Amino acid sequence: MTETQIPDIVVSRLPIYLRALTRLQQEGQHITSSGELGRRLGISSAQIRKDLSHFGEFGKQGTGYQIEFLIKQLRQILKVDHEWSVALVGAGDLGSALARYNGFRNRGFRIELIFDNDPAKIGRELSGYIVQDAALLGTLIPQRGIRLAMIAVPAEAAQFVADELVKAGIKGILSYAPININVPEGVQVQYIDPVVHLQRMTFYC
Amino acid sequence: MTETQIPDIVVSRLPIYLRALTRLQQEGQHITSSGELGRRLGISSAQIRKDLSHFGEFGKQGTGYQIEFLIKQLRQILKVDHEWSVALVGAGDLGSALARYNGFRNRGFRIELIFDNDPAKIGRELSGYIVQDAALLGTLIPQRGIRLAMIAVPAEAAQFVADELVKAGIKGILSYAPININVPEGVQVQYIDPVVHLQRMTFYC
Repeated sequence: MTETQIPDIVVSRLPIYLRALTRLQQEGQHITSSGELGRRLGISSAQIRKDLSHFGEFGKQGTGYQIEFLIKQLRQILKVDHEWSVALVGAGDLGSALARYNGFRNRGFRIELIFDNDPAKIGRELSGYIVQDAALLGTLIPQRGIRLAMIAVPAEAAQFVADELVKAGIKGILSYAPININVPEGVQVQYIDPVVHLQRMTFYC
Repeated sequence: MTETQIPDIVVSRLPIYLRALTRLQQEGQHITSSGELGRRLGISSAQIRKDLSHFGEFGKQGTGYQIEFLIKQLRQILKVDHEWSVALVGAGDLGSALARYNGFRNRGFRIELIFDNDPAKIGRELSGYIVQDAALLGTLIPQRGIRLAMIAVPAEAAQFVADELVKAGIKGILSYAPININVPEGVQVQYIDPVVHLQRMTFYC
């Protein structure tokens, strides 16, 4: 089965399933059901069974899912059965928090390069790495063969940084800048903007 | 038209439209079209017209949207035509970055209470506010009538904090903890987890 046959909306739920399964495993559980997962996630058990059926037969009716096996399969499907190196651009408050966040490593990612264009930040140590001059981005990223990047720069700089990242060979960008970025075909962008999430809730408040 | 008649998926796109329109306004533009917005956002112009039609007639065929008017309407629909006070729980790396982030104020939100349970952090000044003892959460939040909160605590503590927030009257929670939270009917939760976004991209890499 090729990637393009799986609906994007299904793919977008797989990391959520993986996270919940990992949590269950940490809690000492070995077997779960689509019903239990569904209650944890607020997703119907039918939806979960349907989503997972895209990737083969994981559970048997009545016996549930083997958590360890399903985690392994999901990590393989999402290609996080190995670690991805990530470049981070922006070593301000948010970039520093990301660099120090210890939740990446055990879930498939390691921030390996950190860039900033502020002379006061360049050369400083951050979470075990030296902050590099953003002007070196086009050299260091291809050298390391890094394909994923996070952007934690002001909105005004985000498109320029994204363009430079794409030129350097980056194929996936997670942007914290509150602005939509244009990238060429074949490059993916995901966004994190807390205000968007807050505004999605105020509508209902 | 009542809130419940608008599909959630439409509501979830409104903050994105508002953000893009505000950007266009900052760039000095006064009028835009569903086509221009669509190109910026990677959404079809038909989709944008259909989404906005839920809330009345904003644009006239051939003349486009008045940006200022549409911004005003969207802010009203999303109820961010006034400022919401937000409580923040967790004053670690991420919480500190959120407290210092200057992108909330002009988009409808102000972090007004900051909590932590770490004696080393309680009483310290952070972005103009004193970090409060998390034990006071149940007193201070109702006192101020705050209805929105952000959680920036470790996964292990997130459910407990959410329970306390709900007891204190919080109706909407934006959680940065990488775990699904259970809340009673009538309380909303939104999640931000960078790893989920990264894993959504590695599938296609």
